[in-house]
This record gives sequence, structure tokens and C-alpha cells, in this order.
Amino acid sequence: MDRQIPPRSSDSKDGSLNRVAIIGASGYGGLQSIRLLRDHPFFKVTFLGGDRSAGKRWNELCPFLPLDQEACIEKPEPDQIASSADYALLSLPNGLASQLVPQLLDRNVRVLDLSADYRYRNLDQWKQIYVKESDSINRQDFDLCSEAVYGLSEWNAHKISQARIVSCPGCFPTASLLPLLPFLKQGLIENDGLIIDAKTGTSGGGRTAKEHLLLSEASEAIAPYGVIGHRHTSEIEQHATEVAGRQINVQFTPHLVPMVRGLLATVYGRLRDPGLTAEDCITVLETMYRDQHNIDILKVGTYPSTKWVKYTNKAILTVQVDSRTGRLVLMSAIDNLIKGQAGQAIQNLNLMAGLPQETGLPMNTFYP
Amino acid sequence: MDRQIPPRSSDSKDGSLNRVAIIGASGYGGLQSIRLLRDHPFFKVTFLGGDRSAGKRWNELCPFLPLDQEACIEKPEPDQIASSADYALLSLPNGLASQLVPQLLDRNVRVLDLSADYRYRNLDQWKQIYVKESDSINRQDFDLCSEAVYGLSEWNAHKISQARIVSCPGCFPTASLLPLLPFLKQGLIENDGLIIDAKTGTSGGGRTAKEHLLLSEASEAIAPYGVIGHRHTSEIEQHATEVAGRQINVQFTPHLVPMVRGLLATVYGRLRDPGLTAEDCITVLETMYRDQHNIDILKVGTYPSTKWVKYTNKAILTVQVDSRTGRLVLMSAIDNLIKGQAGQAIQNLNLMAGLPQETGLPMNTFYP
Amino acid sequence: MDRQIPPRSSDSKDGSLNRVAIIGASGYGGLQSIRLLRDHPFFKVTFLGGDRSAGKRWNELCPFLPLDQEACIEKPEPDQIASSADYALLSLPNGLASQLVPQLLDRNVRVLDLSADYRYRNLDQWKQIYVKESDSINRQDFDLCSEAVYGLSEWNAHKISQARIVSCPGCFPTASLLPLLPFLKQGLIENDGLIIDAKTGTSGGGRTAKEHLLLSEASEAIAPYGVIGHRHTSEIEQHATEVAGRQINVQFTPHLVPMVRGLLATVYGRLRDPGLTAEDCITVLETMYRDQHNIDILKVGTYPSTKWVKYTNKAILTVQVDSRTGRLVLMSAIDNLIKGQAGQAIQNLNLMAGLPQETGLPMNTFYP
Amino acid sequence: MDRQIPPRSSDSKDGSLNRVAIIGASGYGGLQSIRLLRDHPFFKVTFLGGDRSAGKRWNELCPFLPLDQEACIEKPEPDQIASSADYALLSLPNGLASQLVPQLLDRNVRVLDLSADYRYRNLDQWKQIYVKESDSINRQDFDLCSEAVYGLSEWNAHKISQARIVSCPGCFPTASLLPLLPFLKQGLIENDGLIIDAKTGTSGGGRTAKEHLLLSEASEAIAPYGVIGHRHTSEIEQHATEVAGRQINVQFTPHLVPMVRGLLATVYGRLRDPGLTAEDCITVLETMYRDQHNIDILKVGTYPSTKWVKYTNKAILTVQVDSRTGRLVLMSAIDNLIKGQAGQAIQNLNLMAGLPQETGLPMNTFYP
Repeated sequence: MDRQIPPRSSDSKDGSLNRVAIIGASGYGGLQSIRLLRDHPFFKVTFLGGDRSAGKRWNELCPFLPLDQEACIEKPEPDQIASSADYALLSLPNGLASQLVPQLLDRNVRVLDLSADYRYRNLDQWKQIYVKESDSINRQDFDLCSEAVYGLSEWNAHKISQARIVSCPGCFPTASLLPLLPFLKQGLIENDGLIIDAKTGTSGGGRTAKEHLLLSEASEAIAPYGVIGHRHTSEIEQHATEVAGRQINVQFTPHLVPMVRGLLATVYGRLRDPGLTAEDCITVLETMYRDQHNIDILKVGTYPSTKWVKYTNKAILTVQVDSRTGRLVLMSAIDNLIKGQAGQAIQNLNLMAGLPQETGLPMNTFYP
Repeated sequence: MDRQIPPRSSDSKDGSLNRVAIIGASGYGGLQSIRLLRDHPFFKVTFLGGDRSAGKRWNELCPFLPLDQEACIEKPEPDQIASSADYALLSLPNGLASQLVPQLLDRNVRVLDLSADYRYRNLDQWKQIYVKESDSINRQDFDLCSEAVYGLSEWNAHKISQARIVSCPGCFPTASLLPLLPFLKQGLIENDGLIIDAKTGTSGGGRTAKEHLLLSEASEAIAPYGVIGHRHTSEIEQHATEVAGRQINVQFTPHLVPMVRGLLATVYGRLRDPGLTAEDCITVLETMYRDQHNIDILKVGTYPSTKWVKYTNKAILTVQVDSRTGRLVLMSAIDNLIKGQAGQAIQNLNLMAGLPQETGLPMNTFYP
Repeated sequence: MDRQIPPRSSDSKDGSLNRVAIIGASGYGGLQSIRLLRDHPFFKVTFLGGDRSAGKRWNELCPFLPLDQEACIEKPEPDQIASSADYALLSLPNGLASQLVPQLLDRNVRVLDLSADYRYRNLDQWKQIYVKESDSINRQDFDLCSEAVYGLSEWNAHKISQARIVSCPGCFPTASLLPLLPFLKQGLIENDGLIIDAKTGTSGGGRTAKEHLLLSEASEAIAPYGVIGHRHTSEIEQHATEVAGRQINVQFTPHLVPMVRGLLATVYGRLRDPGLTAEDCITVLETMYRDQHNIDILKVGTYPSTKWVKYTNKAILTVQVDSRTGRLVLMSAIDNLIKGQAGQAIQNLNLMAGLPQETGLPMNTFYP
Repeated sequence: MDRQIPPRSSDSKDGSLNRVAIIGASGYGGLQSIRLLRDHPFFKVTFLGGDRSAGKRWNELCPFLPLDQEACIEKPEPDQIASSADYALLSLPNGLASQLVPQLLDRNVRVLDLSADYRYRNLDQWKQIYVKESDSINRQDFDLCSEAVYGLSEWNAHKISQARIVSCPGCFPTASLLPLLPFLKQGLIENDGLIIDAKTGTSGGGRTAKEHLLLSEASEAIAPYGVIGHRHTSEIEQHATEVAGRQINVQFTPHLVPMVRGLLATVYGRLRDPGLTAEDCITVLETMYRDQHNIDILKVGTYPSTKWVKYTNKAILTVQVDSRTGRLVLMSAIDNLIKGQAGQAIQNLNLMAGLPQETGLPMNTFYP
């Protein structure tokens, strides 16, 4: 890999480059973003926002990730954020980002949102799917929903680089779409009958204490959840449909796995041309992702473990074909908190700042 | 499915009832069988067989499961087994059981085999699938293959009760077939397009040390393996085809999960009648398994965790229907070493001895 | 082991034998008690008490441990408990039991308390140690504190059998005292310099959701907590002092281990007679616990894993001696929720009802 | 402790700077070294040595850590190593390094040895402790044993920087000595009565498949091992004695914890001056390690989790004092494969090359 980083050009708005505000700093999305940016050569965290812990010293709250002695969590006030940062990375519960984003954009802060608030082009669809959130918050930002760019970095790099607001994909959609889109785009699999069986570690459920995420409950157990109608289904379908150019429905089932990190998607589809081999399908993936440093394609017959991508921004993809059944099985492994969340956000931040996508992101897993 | 249990009478050969030999005693299948039989009111382990550790004292080998001070592992000689036991439970590597079974049957020992040696009615199919084993062992026992009863207890109870040799199903086939067969039998799902995405704990890989099963390797990781062509595929298809009365092909993908015990099968199929609801499908399961104490059916919308069946002989089943896609999603959780192996073997042993299937088997999980 | 259970004698108060109320039913102490009593031949759970979930159907709350369809959680009203049960097993947060126990005793319900409320003979000591609880609850039940019997079953069997109220020991004191007391009683180790380094699984922290007990936080981690001044220190010292007949101080440090169940205590002490060998010390343990079915002593050089006692009411003890340093190292493994909590409570319940201590309790671990 | 770093100058032998050979590349020590050096700005892995897998392509063997397409494992021939590398990092089973080191030194390759072969200044002591290894290998390299520098980086920096051969400490000695030495050096704790209760993840046992390290066996379990006489005892004592200037004996007990990475040492000692407070003791640590970037000292009352150092080269230390017992409790957390092995080796490599110790080493944990 080439260590040379190109000069940062037209990105500067006012000379105050590279400053990033993290809103929701002590949740897993925030923590991970702060951690990743500590090793980033071009960005600097300059504001730590949070409601619950506002006023507290960071190092007392998070002794495992020590920052400057003086670092404190602050109320996420738009003016203060705008005076401290050029970019804001929002890691808030669904619904809350939409209360802050318009004010940040008005103050020329470019926004990366980790929540689902801007993942749908149409606010009405969001209201239909995020019913509870929609009930308690009165949103009318139809224009921002249609303006926001879906931050699947490899597929929307140009738009992301220009965007004022990037809506970062969910972890399941990221893992599912990366292997699937090349085949949909080329019309190689049938519209119908797509099945995504996904498996995630517990950190996907966030840092807020919930009984079912206790080690005592989640350890030594695997279970499906959200069977039929998990909210990521519609997010996957929206983007798959857009790329395929025709309506795509998927059967999506997530499972909770007894591990902290990692997300595996096993995707089943039917080949249009039953003569395609696994090698052919690998070539489809390789061709599509040839220049993408954050994506690795395995050889036929080697299958990815989530351990191989842990603590990296890599997605590892592969595919197998069953000539008996005419099906292909796509496999995709990511770290749910990095490539599935904070890492992809920083990949997008790199794009917004005119940097190579992979700048400053971890690429090599520690093993074991 | 056959629910009638024959009377216990003619079982006694010589008055010495209830004596069981465990061959392969210190592997997980053997250990689990011994453990379960310690709490069984009608059976008694009277012979501990093993090759590698022959001559060693049990309590030094396995201090975590203390037996009589004098208990030793012995070479599995047919004459000695026959003089010590009425039943032999074989937990040996594939291929080896077939070297012992004929001699045991000749000596009137009834056999439960945990390996794959007698899972195919046709020895030629076994040779095709277990190539490596077939290469090193010259088997000609075609007749025993066709005589052996497939020990899926709830479906073959009557035959099992009469059998000289019961071939106990693999863990994946057990978990997959239990929810699937009722729908196949009633013709409710399409022949084509069945997908089984299965997840197992590491104990399914046995007790012999292998690098990929080390905690350091398997922990904090989930990965698919044996994609396309796992040997349990053919076993599932054989029995599914038999019950359905038509050729059934399945797409089967196992995954290794970072936990000791537990196996979850998520099975996807297309409903023939798209008007069927989840409630209807639950009724199908409830009707079929009404009198089965080893099977629990959950309500619509409650999904099983493998934790709920850990250390029990229960299978927990449920089903969900997606009217959008016309598909049903079957879910099935078992303990891979009990209902998926040693427990089902003892369930079959109960049947062979004329006892209620659930006799002496653990039914309540310890939680958490 | 002898399966014959002696007749239940003088225990009957009014003919309504064997009925047990579980108060705090859906916490881990309650759950575990219910689970264990389901397999008990002489007791029956007849009342499920709880505040938060009063009115809810059990099977919806805990589908993993199905009871009668009709079973509901009820408010723990003394009159209702007294009319439903002969014994009450209280698994409540510290402080709360003391609000219920006097009324239960008045109504002739015999009580087993799993909290710390009656672990100190002197209420003043409790107030000193459980400051926060003491501040919010006005306790004056000095007499009950001195009446309550400390339920370390093997050491207080006779008193327990007669008691109206048994205060069940904490998990750490149980594991620590069992190997230590024989040596203190015989004056074989020095008063001074006792160090207890203890390790527990996360279920010891209860079922209420807390951030540090999330799988994401507790997994892949070991950490000390409550260093200097953990509340179990005083509990251990009180009982050790009583048995030793002289003041005993201990240095007690608990650690949180990434597993659900299990508690290991490693206890370091200095031998008075440096000539004692490990074999001698094993003999001390064997002699003391000769007739105790819930305690196993290992041979010199075999060390206990918590896995060996998981889901059982066993304590496994052993000892090693370092002649170089003149020290002995005691090791003790228990299942923190069974022998360390609900199992020992039922062991005490057996004693109170005139049954052998081990009646109905699980003795064989499932392995692995 | 020596903090002065010599200039980087004289290090170059022939202009081909910074080339490192990894011998034992596919074990955990080797893997971890390769991984760390991939992100190092001054070193480059130029030789991958291994016996078992010699001739195999790296990327097929270790697809999770892809190197150049052409990279192969090679036989560790001294001439070839010397022509490819300036430094050799040996991660071999005990005994084997001593067969290679003399030849490497003769060829001017500077050596970092991760095994125990050169940890004792006196070869006779090694023979006494590593009996089995000593029996099968005829070692006479007394001079090299006394020449080798013990690579506890913070304590021997100057000597390490000049050394031809650095013997890297074991993981337990590293974690134990770092908190202990400052107190021994200043004579603040009594010689006698030191107890080290240590806890390690399974990766400390290496990558070779062993039954007791299987996930099925090691998960959901904690157990002591090597009680009395673990080989690291003598290693700890040798260095502690050297720094204290008087004979130090320790009681050392390791425990196996169900996690991949991490090592925690809890060290108990008696204060000479019972008036010392925890704050005083923290000051002792802070003063000693003021300029050490690889060591963090926590505030009184905050206790380290191994999770806080995972995948970093940090040691986190703290101390608590119990005025009741006159004891101090030292706590120390490291990543056993990094600060406890490969990371400390590279810290030493930095010293040997005249670089700041922390160069290129990971300092921030990913959390959770």
C-alpha cells in the first residue's frame, strides 16, 4: 500500500481544517470514531458532545481511552459545535440527529450521520418504518432526506465527496449490499428469492445496558431476532432496487452471536445463467472492487471469518456456486463497529476531505 | 410419524436388562452418553470402550465425571462387550463403527451408532460421500445399511423400537428435519428453493484437538464452512425426500459459532398457499408434535435461543411467515450434543427398551 | 449414591407439606431456585413473588422455563404467601428481605434468605457495611439477626435443620470458607496473612441490566473490583473468626471473569507446621468432609476447573503446599448460582425438612 | 532503570537497515510480530522462517494476514537469514532457539529471542528448570546465557540497545515485575510473603492444537494450573532478586481464563512502612515510569481491565493499600501477545536500532 497521502486541496472552507466534532461520544459509535481518529493523520477531534454525561471529564468516564486531561463532554449546542469543528459525526439514537442536522448545515458544518434518520430518500418512508421515533418527533425535513447521500463508500464515492450530509449505512446493509450489488447491477441474479441470513456480535446493540445483551444472557447462545420486518430490510431493498434498476425484495433475518464484534452476511440468490461458475462470480467481485483498498475478495473455497476483519475497516467477500441448485451463496464479513459504522463514516469523511478513502483506517487484523 | 410404543416385554434376552456399553467413551458423544445415563432410572453403563486410552482408569482421565474407583477404559472386543452389555452405543469416527457392528449384532447386542456409517440406506451412497473413509475401509455390509433404522426418534419410533441397529442422525439433520418434515409431509412448501442456514457450537467438532477449534481461534468469530457439499446435505435430502414422497434438494450452509453447545437451524422455504399465516403454520407444528415431550413449539413472534435448550433433550421449534415474499422461516434450536447426538440416542434406547421416549432425559435448561 | 430418601418426619406443620414460595422469582436467584425445585422430589413451588412484574404470566416472561399455563407473578403479600407456602425463599436486593421476613415468621413461614440482610449476628455491623441500604430502610430487628442461622450447610447442619430463618451465605464466602475452615478449626494455619483471590462469572452480578455486565464490556476481559473493602470480606471474617476461635482477617480480592457461571477461590495461607505435606492437607479436607455428598476433594496435583461444577451443587476442593515458602494454596470451585446461591439454599431447605442435604440437587456436570 | 537511548548511528552494518527475519512465523508470537511490523515505519519483515510449513505460500497459510503474493515460509538456514536480515526475532519452542542463535550471532545478525533459552544468566539453572528440553538438546552456550540481556524494556533499555542478543521476558514475568520492581528497588515491601495470582487468556498457550485449549474445554471455565513450581516463578525471582539486591521468593499461581488475549497479575505484598497510603504507592509507580510511553498508571480506586490494553503495547498498573492488614495489592494488565511477547520484542528492537521505545507500536485499545 502506498503510504503517500496526496495534498489536501479545495477542502478548506476557512483555513480551520480537519476539526471533527463527535456527538454521542461515549456510545460505541462515538468511542470508535474517537479511537480511529486518534490515529488519523489529517483529522482531529475537537468537540465531544453528549447529553447524559455533559460536564463530565472524559478521562474519568472512559479511562480506557485517555484523551487530554482537560477533555470534557459538552452539551451539543449547534453554535459551539460550529465554532469548534468543520465536520460533525453524529452517533445518536434514531430521531435525534434530525433535530440537530439542519442547524449544523446552516452553520456550514458538514455532517456524517450514523443513525437511520437520513437513510431514506423519502421522509414518509422513514415515518412508516421508524414509527415510534416519528410519533415523538415532528420532522418536516423532506428536502434534507432527499439531499442526503447514502454513505456506502465504494458505491457513492463521488457524491459523498461533494455532500453536505452523508447518511452512513447500517451495519447489516453494509455487509449485505457490498457482495450483492455487483450481481444486481449486472443482472446476474434473479430479482426474486434473495435471502440474507445475517449474524452480528452484541456491540451492534449499543452500549446502553439491556438485559438481553448481558454476558450472562447472550453468551453461549445464538438466536434469531426481528424475523420478518427488521428495519434494515427496507434500507437494503431501497439501495438494492436503485442499483438493480428494478424492484428487489429480500428476506432478511438477523441473528445475535455471542461475540463482541463482527458481522457476517450469508446471502442466497438464484443465478440467471446456471452455467456461471464460482470462479466467474469471484471475477465479478474482483472486477467491481479492483481498486478498493477496503475490500478483499477471497479465492474460491476460502470462507471468511469475522475474526479476519476485527478492528479493521475491511470487508472480506467471497462467493460459492451450487450447480445442483443453481444458486450462489455470497459471504461477507465486516467489523460491525468499524466498516459497519464508525470506520465507514471516516472513510466517507476522507472522501469529503478529498483524501484517499482508506486514509488513516486500520487494515490489518490482530490475530488471534 | 409413529407414536405408538410397543410393550417393554420381549426386550430381555437373559434377564440382565438395561446394561449399556459405551464405545468411544472419552469423546464428547461418549462422555455425554455416560453423563446422561448416570441419571437414568433404567439403564446402567457397564462397559467403557476406547482404543487410545484402553487400560487407563476413568477417574484419572475424566476427573470431572467421577465413576466407580475401579472403572477403566477397555479395548472394544466384541465378546467382552456382548458379555457385559445388552446395548452398545457407538461413538466412533466415521468408518470404524462398521468394523464392529456386524460382530455385535451376531452376539445379540443391539446397537445405537452415532456415526454416519449406517445413515444411508444404500452403502454405495455412503461410499460416494464418505470417500476418504471408504478408501481406507473395505465395507460390504449392504444389508445392514438397508436394515438400519434412521433414528430420528419422533418420526421412526415404531421401527426404532424393533430395530437391531439404529443409526442416529447427525446434529444438523436433526435440527433441520424436525421443523421441516411436517411441512414436507403435508405438501405445504415447494420442493424447490429450500435453504438451511445452520449455526453450531464448537463441540460439534469433537474433542480431538484441532487448531481451528482452539478458543484462541474460534472465539470472537463466526464463519461459514463446508459451503456447498457438506456431507449432512445428502443426509437431510435422503430423509426429506422419503417423507415428502418426491425429490427434495436443499441448500445447506453450516456456520461455526463461538460457543460450546447449541445448534440453530434457520430454514427458508416458499409456501405453496401464500394465504397461510404464521398461526396456521404453528398449528401444523403443534398438531404434528402434540404428544412429543421432547419438542416444544413457541408462539408466533417468540424466537428460540440455543440457550433455552442447553443441556436438555428438547428441540424448540417455531415458524414465521412473510406475506410480502410468500416465504416461511422455520427456526429450530437444539443442544447439539444431547438432542443432536447422545440424548437422541438415549431417546432411541428408551424406545428400544419399550420405555417412554423421554425417560431419564433432562428437559429443563439451567438459565442463564 | 443412595437413591433411597428417608421418610419426612416431624416437619409437617399442618399437613400442607413441601410448598415453597419464591420471592424475587425472575432474578437469577429466583430462576435458579425454581429450576432446581422442578426436579426435586419433595418440594413444589406454589407461589411466584415479584414486584416489578407482578401480574404478568410466567411463561411470557420466561419462555425458557415454562411452568403451568396459568402461573403468574404475584405481589409478595405476607398473608398470601403464608396461605400458599410453608417455606419462603427470598431472593431480593439487600435491605428488602428485612421488610418481609418478620411478617413471614409471624405467619409461621420458615424463611431462607439469599440476601445479606441476616448474615451478620449483629444488626449494627450490617448497618456499618450496608450503609446505603441502611440509610433508606429503618431496621430494628436485632433479635432476628442474632436468631438467624448462617446457612453454610456443611458447617451448620443441625442448627439449620431447626431454624426459622436461614441466612444463606454469599457466593464468595461459600467458596472461600469451605476449604479454609477445616484448617482454621484445627489451627493449622497462621491467623495472619490470609489472602483470598477470587474469580467469578458475570451471573454473580445479577440479571438487572448494568453496563459493565454487557457481553460487549465483560467479554474478552478480566478485571479486579472491590479491591480492599468488598462487603464479603467482613462476612468471611465473621464466620472464620467464629470457627477459628480467634480473630481472623483476610485480604479478599474478587475478579470478574468472562463467563456466565462459576466461581473459583484461590486461598493463600502460611502453615504453622512447615513439615505438613500436600497429602497431609488433603487428608485434613477429606476427613472433615468425608460424609458430605456436595463436596469433592481432588487428589494432590489435580486442580479444579469451574467447568467441573457447572450446573451442580458440588464444591470441588483441593490444596497444594509449597515447602519453599511454607505456604499452602487452597483451591475451591463452585457454581456461583447453585452451590453459591440457590442450590445451597435448597440444601438448607432439605435440612429444614429433615431430608438428606443433597436430595434433588444436581451432582453431575454436563461436560463440556 | 535506564532511560537513556543511544544514538541510532552505529547500527547500520552494511547500509541495508531495518530488515527483520521472523523465525517461527506462523505461531502466535511470529504472527503477532509480523502484524506489528507491517505498521512499523522503520522495520520490514524480509524473511519468514518455519520448519513445519517451509515451502508453503504465506497467503494460503494465513489468508487473514495477507502479505506479498510471493511470500513463502522458508527453512531457517543461518546463511540465508543473515543475507536477508539484520535482526532475527525467534519465536520457537523452548530449546530450539539455542540451536540457531550462535550461528546467527556469528553472522552478525542481532537476535531477539522470545523463548526461555536465554532468560537465565546461568545455563545450569535453565537445565534445572527446563529439564525435558535439556534432556533432548545438548547445550554448552554458558557464555551466551551470561551475555544475553533480559529484555524487560523499561528496566534494561541501555543494555538492550547495545545487545547482540536480547532474551525477551515471559508474559507472566513482564506483568508481575513491572508493578513490583519499583517497590523492591526502593525497599518498600518485605522480602517475604509475596504472592502473585495471575490470570491469562488462552493464546498464551500457543497455536498448536491442545485439548485443554479447545473452545469447548476452556470456555465457561477458570482454573489454576502449574500451582507450585510453574517455570515462570524462577524467572520472576531471578530478576526481582537482582533489582532488590536480596533474595526474593514469590508464590506464583497462574490461572487460565476464557478469553483469547490479556493477562492480569494481582500481586500481594506487605508494606515495610504501614503508614504508606495508596496515593503514596501510586506516586512510587508514577515516579518510576514517568517518561515511559508504554506504561500507564491509574488513579487510586480505578482498577485495570485487560480489555483496556488489548491489542496494545501498554501495561496498565495500579495499587491499592489495605491499612487493616498492612498490605498492598498491585495490579497489572497487559496484552499477553503484545506487551507480554511480540510487542515488547519490538520495543526492544526499537532500542537496539536507536529508536524511541514506543515507535510504531499500538497504544490505543479498540473498545469494546
